[in-house]
Amino acid sequence: MAESWSFLDAFEPNFRPLVVIELAKGTKEETLKWFTKRIVDKKANGGAQLLVKPLVTESGDENIYLVGASHLRLLLGAETVGLVKECNDNSMRTFTYSSRKTFKDFADDNHNFLTMAECQYIVKHELENLRAKDEKMIPGYPQAKLYPGKSIVRRLLTSGILVQIFPLHDREELKKLRQSWYGRVKVGYQPLDEIRCYFGETIALYFGFLEYFTFALIPMAVIGIPYYVFAWEDYDKYVMFATFNLLWSTVILEVWKRICAIMTYRWGTLLMKRQFEEPRSGFHGVLGINPVTGREEPVYSSIKRQIRIYLVSLPFVCLCLYFSLYVMMIYFDLEQWALDYHEENESNFSNLMLFVPSIIYAVVIEIMNRIYRYAAEFLTSWENHRLESSYQNHLILKVLVFNFLNCFASLFYIAFVLFDMKLLRQSLATLLITSQILNQFAESLLPYWLQKRHKKRTKKRISSLKTDTDLSLVEQVNLEKEMGTYFGTFDDYLELFLQFGYVSLFSCVYPLAAVFAVLNNITEIYSDALKMCRVYKRPFAEPTANIGVWQLAFETMSVISVVTNCMLIGMSPQVNALFPDSKMDLILTVALVEHLLLAIKFIMAFVIPDKPRDIQIKLARLEFESLEALKQQIFPLNKCFHRESGDHKR
Amino acid sequence: MAESWSFLDAFEPNFRPLVVIELAKGTKEETLKWFTKRIVDKKANGGAQLLVKPLVTESGDENIYLVGASHLRLLLGAETVGLVKECNDNSMRTFTYSSRKTFKDFADDNHNFLTMAECQYIVKHELENLRAKDEKMIPGYPQAKLYPGKSIVRRLLTSGILVQIFPLHDREELKKLRQSWYGRVKVGYQPLDEIRCYFGETIALYFGFLEYFTFALIPMAVIGIPYYVFAWEDYDKYVMFATFNLLWSTVILEVWKRICAIMTYRWGTLLMKRQFEEPRSGFHGVLGINPVTGREEPVYSSIKRQIRIYLVSLPFVCLCLYFSLYVMMIYFDLEQWALDYHEENESNFSNLMLFVPSIIYAVVIEIMNRIYRYAAEFLTSWENHRLESSYQNHLILKVLVFNFLNCFASLFYIAFVLFDMKLLRQSLATLLITSQILNQFAESLLPYWLQKRHKKRTKKRISSLKTDTDLSLVEQVNLEKEMGTYFGTFDDYLELFLQFGYVSLFSCVYPLAAVFAVLNNITEIYSDALKMCRVYKRPFAEPTANIGVWQLAFETMSVISVVTNCMLIGMSPQVNALFPDSKMDLILTVALVEHLLLAIKFIMAFVIPDKPRDIQIKLARLEFESLEALKQQIFPLNKCFHRESGDHKR
Repeated sequence: MAESWSFLDAFEPNFRPLVVIELAKGTKEETLKWFTKRIVDKKANGGAQLLVKPLVTESGDENIYLVGASHLRLLLGAETVGLVKECNDNSMRTFTYSSRKTFKDFADDNHNFLTMAECQYIVKHELENLRAKDEKMIPGYPQAKLYPGKSIVRRLLTSGILVQIFPLHDREELKKLRQSWYGRVKVGYQPLDEIRCYFGETIALYFGFLEYFTFALIPMAVIGIPYYVFAWEDYDKYVMFATFNLLWSTVILEVWKRICAIMTYRWGTLLMKRQFEEPRSGFHGVLGINPVTGREEPVYSSIKRQIRIYLVSLPFVCLCLYFSLYVMMIYFDLEQWALDYHEENESNFSNLMLFVPSIIYAVVIEIMNRIYRYAAEFLTSWENHRLESSYQNHLILKVLVFNFLNCFASLFYIAFVLFDMKLLRQSLATLLITSQILNQFAESLLPYWLQKRHKKRTKKRISSLKTDTDLSLVEQVNLEKEMGTYFGTFDDYLELFLQFGYVSLFSCVYPLAAVFAVLNNITEIYSDALKMCRVYKRPFAEPTANIGVWQLAFETMSVISVVTNCMLIGMSPQVNALFPDSKMDLILTVALVEHLLLAIKFIMAFVIPDKPRDIQIKLARLEFESLEALKQQIFPLNKCFHRESGDHKR
Repeated sequence: MAESWSFLDAFEPNFRPLVVIELAKGTKEETLKWFTKRIVDKKANGGAQLLVKPLVTESGDENIYLVGASHLRLLLGAETVGLVKECNDNSMRTFTYSSRKTFKDFADDNHNFLTMAECQYIVKHELENLRAKDEKMIPGYPQAKLYPGKSIVRRLLTSGILVQIFPLHDREELKKLRQSWYGRVKVGYQPLDEIRCYFGETIALYFGFLEYFTFALIPMAVIGIPYYVFAWEDYDKYVMFATFNLLWSTVILEVWKRICAIMTYRWGTLLMKRQFEEPRSGFHGVLGINPVTGREEPVYSSIKRQIRIYLVSLPFVCLCLYFSLYVMMIYFDLEQWALDYHEENESNFSNLMLFVPSIIYAVVIEIMNRIYRYAAEFLTSWENHRLESSYQNHLILKVLVFNFLNCFASLFYIAFVLFDMKLLRQSLATLLITSQILNQFAESLLPYWLQKRHKKRTKKRISSLKTDTDLSLVEQVNLEKEMGTYFGTFDDYLELFLQFGYVSLFSCVYPLAAVFAVLNNITEIYSDALKMCRVYKRPFAEPTANIGVWQLAFETMSVISVVTNCMLIGMSPQVNALFPDSKMDLILTVALVEHLLLAIKFIMAFVIPDKPRDIQIKLARLEFESLEALKQQIFPLNKCFHRESGDHKR
């Protein structure tokens, strides 16, 4: 039996490659043997019980392996990772192998019960949970230390023996997805369920949010257009627009939570239990005992980390913020200089010169953002967080604060120090449009073009070889392993976040921002879709139930925008005219209105339930059932109850 | 065997009465028989499997029953309600009968493993879960309808057949508790763990909060005293005090969450799963199917309830608020009139007259609060909430808003309309001290005195009878059934909440408020303890993990106090002197400082973790263990895995 799970077994005709493992060229034979043996070994022997098959490449090197798994193994894995699936009675339940018959579309021969993305997620999970037993090091590499319980794959990755692990694309599925996603020009929703099946929940949720956000902006854009067309410069109209904007942004953020709950309930991730998180691969420390698991693993004092965060990272971030403000002041000097130059020698050239400072500043901001990003990644990694989630949160916080200041400081300065509404509107437009164009180019079109060129070359090289068996698979793997890696939805959300800032912070000054945002988002959907399908390696699916810290970030932005808009309205001449005698009354009134709006915001956020009623009921029913099941478990004890109560009486 | 659980069984020598059931006098024999049979019947037959024993009273009526349970039954009940207990390895785990040996202090003959309060909670839970099977009505009372699954005890209560159910005091334990709680004059902490063992978590948590809050106020009081003694009227000193106050109040509310987590972890309630909530006893509607349980029960359209809330309750509350403001205006007229009178004919009498309006107003406020309370209870009950918790939240919200306005509106008016700081200080002192004295008197001393008088009379009556068996028990039950019922911690928390308002809202004007609050709270601890031990019936223990909606209420108050204090500081002459030229700059500065303080508050609340690290680790360990246990459950499947994978290959 053990033999049937060996190498040879992997050549069974129904072997379906799911995940590619690329090892470094020239990896020692001994290591290869040990690693592949561990992958195929039985669970009871500490293996992953998966199937593995070397890819025959043109050079004959055996450094690329394809990993698959039998149908049964995948079903058991689905139970291990706690996948939630739809039952025959339309309720969502955690999948267990023993209750498999109650699930919708389940049949012993239906290999599509689990989507390919789910299968790949399971394989990835099993590979990452392949742990060292009594090995002290990776065979053949004495410097790559192991200790009992250490994830083998993570050690292989950090010691450079393992180059990468990635899931394979499914060409047919991808073609179908592309067709329905962006293949034809159509008005309508994205195929979110199909995206989720192919790319997993995290990415589908991003596209869901992007789509929702675009739809939510449309009312603002529609109301904003007449302001531009008819040049409604009256501030009373702007006041109405701003008030609508503030309440609207609260509503859309609350409603998103409900829509997100509906989607993730349907996808099963709302019910999925959070798995215990392993230390992230970069985490290091002296070997100790994890107090939670009782397992041996590196431990790092939380006080040391706090010191690094508060005594190094925090001052560094503050310094960067200061520097960013300094650059901003230079920009204003330049702006002034350009204006003076234009006034002195008026010409076409000088007219053009007027735009130069803004454009330079926009470009400089983009560059500073990117440099700071590297610094933030370095610092956060140096802070040595144990968990990937905690690392991500600290990174997001650092980057958010800097980006926020970088993008909006100049606008705040213009609005609340210079009091120049004309300049504010002009800068806002320049910043918004420049950053949108730069982003679309740098994010999708450039990589797409590079990718296309590379593909042509690879195709040429491969077709020059004349291998006939499985050419398409070899070709596919070789193409995909050279593709860029998609590093998660961080940048995509950040872009939306900043856009939300442009739209909401100064909405009463530049109502057209929403129009640009809508237009950008429509092309953004297409270019992001292109990026996912064509430019990057297929990413592993990540189950997730919400957009996490971004919800908080958007909500914070909407609170800040209440403050800024109230200030802008308070500064408007029309509102000032209402209080001709007393500036004090004006400011007090504005402050009162602001506090009222903030109070309304918080009350609205509190009153609107985060989950729709039917989802609440479904969740309550599941909870009730599990409590009832517990009671059922107890009362078979009645037997022992009777027996022991008899004892008791004697 | 079934016979051994009958009536006769209840007379076994080790029957320990836990709960008293008082039925209406003259309840039909048929009903009594049916009800007691259901209580002692086996679980499998839909009974509660408890022990029951009629109390022989002087009049010979059989309308009072004592309910108990065997040790084994209680242990199984502890599993049903999901009690969490300490294990031998000092971790907290959900108690199960099968794993009973792993729990600390467990022994088959140790009947103190469950505290008496826990036993009573279990008995209450089992009684309330005694459900109708196929009875259409309560035997003997055709008007008291039943349907399958309806809680029998609730129907008996609503139809007036059941007068009350209450747990018995344990005189010895109570004596010990009284001794260590307030028996001797001592400086030190309350015996919270003992209070929790005797009265349950909800009440222990209230006393814990009261104690914590008192200690937390001491720094404010200590800093406040010199302001009074040395008559530091300088506003710069007040500014410092107010700033300290604001940050301090944020810190103490955050730290409370941590302390609360530590306590409730030790008590096991932090880990306890929320039980499915039954409809509250007052809930009515047409018979339908509950979508969560699938059981038959009354259903009431949520839209109808929303209409009642928003179209009746909300306008009514607004009307009451308006009326309260109207009364306040009358008070100010009276005040003015008294002042005029004093100026016209200056005498001792007119001097005394000056205080009359404030005192009248304080008394009127108390009366209005009490009347409104009845109205709010009526309205909330008419809103027909299905759950007790939802009823409580709506009631608390209504009462809070009104009490807040009633207590503080006059102070706001004096501060921000009349700008009279002297009057503000005077009114604050009058209101605070009057309400404290009134409360202490109405809450504890008056009922205690009434109770004492009643006790004497009952004792006389009982000793005139000459029954000799079990006199003390009969006497005890008769005494306790006449005692008042403790309606929960609502009023006690409300008092603390308003006190917190007096202390924090105008702290920069009257720093002495904290001193009065501390003094009041010290006596409050003693009078509340007296009230719990001597005045009221023993309440059923209620497991709870936190102070619930009160945390939110206190946090809201602390946000409001940032706003009021900033305004007070902005109005102070000293701060005004800093901006001699421009009122505008002053207001803008104050607004800026206010926003900064609010931002700091929110960041602090966000950064301080709600649970201490060691509790977090303990919770994570439990979660990890349950996930591991799940995986262990799966891999016995390996056997079938091998078998089926063999099948698969064929």
